[in-house]
Amino acid sequence: MKRSSASHLAVDGILPGQRIASYAIGEVVASASPEYVAGDVVAGVLGWEDYTLFTPSPAVLMGKLDASSDFPLSHHISVLGTSGMTAYGGLFEVCKAVKGEKVFVSAASGSVGLLAGQFAKLAGCYVVGCAGTKAKVDLLKEKLGFDDAFNYKEEPDLKSALKRYFPNGIDINFENVGGEMMEAVLANMNTYGRVALCGVISEYTGASRRAVPDLLEMIYKRITIRGFFAWDFLPKFAEYNAVIGDWVRQGKVQVIEDVSDGLENLPAAFVELFTGQNVGKKIVKLA
Amino acid sequence: MKRSSASHLAVDGILPGQRIASYAIGEVVASASPEYVAGDVVAGVLGWEDYTLFTPSPAVLMGKLDASSDFPLSHHISVLGTSGMTAYGGLFEVCKAVKGEKVFVSAASGSVGLLAGQFAKLAGCYVVGCAGTKAKVDLLKEKLGFDDAFNYKEEPDLKSALKRYFPNGIDINFENVGGEMMEAVLANMNTYGRVALCGVISEYTGASRRAVPDLLEMIYKRITIRGFFAWDFLPKFAEYNAVIGDWVRQGKVQVIEDVSDGLENLPAAFVELFTGQNVGKKIVKLA
Repeated sequence: MKRSSASHLAVDGILPGQRIASYAIGEVVASASPEYVAGDVVAGVLGWEDYTLFTPSPAVLMGKLDASSDFPLSHHISVLGTSGMTAYGGLFEVCKAVKGEKVFVSAASGSVGLLAGQFAKLAGCYVVGCAGTKAKVDLLKEKLGFDDAFNYKEEPDLKSALKRYFPNGIDINFENVGGEMMEAVLANMNTYGRVALCGVISEYTGASRRAVPDLLEMIYKRITIRGFFAWDFLPKFAEYNAVIGDWVRQGKVQVIEDVSDGLENLPAAFVELFTGQNVGKKIVKLA
Repeated sequence: MKRSSASHLAVDGILPGQRIASYAIGEVVASASPEYVAGDVVAGVLGWEDYTLFTPSPAVLMGKLDASSDFPLSHHISVLGTSGMTAYGGLFEVCKAVKGEKVFVSAASGSVGLLAGQFAKLAGCYVVGCAGTKAKVDLLKEKLGFDDAFNYKEEPDLKSALKRYFPNGIDINFENVGGEMMEAVLANMNTYGRVALCGVISEYTGASRRAVPDLLEMIYKRITIRGFFAWDFLPKFAEYNAVIGDWVRQGKVQVIEDVSDGLENLPAAFVELFTGQNVGKKIVKLA
């Protein structure tokens, strides 16, 4: 067992049945484990608290951060943490994205979406994203290099909207939304289309009705939907981060982080995730 | 172009937008193609007619049957045809079934289901199927070697029924039904569960409401749903049939065919597929 001060805490990745915890980076202040000593900086699923006590296990603790890393600590939560892993693994491991494929990213200005879109562009894909405000849409098109983007709130018919942006159909969907958005995506998918099911933000809060996929269409088009999350790619974490880290160093990937300060602001930061208020990775700095 | 007499016709595998056609075996009576001569026996997607005229292409014509085959012609439509390919490919290619996994087959007394269940048993899996009559359930348990089977019409709560048959969860679902059945399966699936989505018989006729999968559960459990059909495995047809043919010769797989006679009986045979009247592969013999 050991105690660590959580210096950064990302409000993401909460597992059902757990106490409230998130992917975070912390500094070890005391340890009874021979693997860790005071001063180590570790990453894992840590509690929403200034000091947290737990038994190291692969399910909660990813391990020590590379002490020689030249990136800010926050990057190890966002682009080099669960967000980057989710985007990279979803795109290349789950969907096997290759050059020339047409990729749609929903909730594209979120922490994972904006990375998935940028990574897909770097792989030579055609990428369109959607978001909920003009500012977010502009960000996707002007700063993040998406081929196109649209505000889903201004589209009365999502199926027609996607048909306009993908006249030749969608090959890959990085799905963060669910509900009607996902139905519209399936209706516009090409044969052998793949859906990396990463989140269902429209369904978490019960704001939208749940998606009713057309299963017959899934058969005719041989569509695959696969649920996943970052932790699945833990064995490939170092491999992914070698590529992603180079992209960041070369300025090929823009990192967008939205940092709040103090434990007392954590619940509010969490709520922002579900009300469309944040852009990029939401991070709360505790110490 | 060539003319063939369709000597056997299976009412299965109709593609949208096509004239009415099914996977069938026919004898070439005349051919302008250098690859085929009168007397060749071919398999492909042929019209519902005594004589059919078409241009050979990989999309419709699988090719010549092995003239040295020691199996009855009908087997080349059922266990060595699209049904066998669908069952084998769905189980081993789509779901990567391995020994010890727990497999649920819906519509298990249908042409594909009864093969999928038997193949899964041969691979060392625990296999439970469901069907709609006592006679079908008895067949699955007593003749086809399923570990267990139940009549879904006698189960008011499909989720609880599956929980009873799979106290440790379902790893693989060979899904032929859709609707509430599929929701119940997803609710009972284990982490990394796989659904081979082969048919949605409950939804074809609008008799049942469409499935509303719990997408959040799909993420937490990392479930994959993949739509597919037999034609996807065409390049592996010979490889699959080498294995399946040996199983049939050794008596390890029971072949169940339900043969009608004459073109005039084809529509009625087709309707039987949707009303739960057939057991095994429905075949109509034309000549």
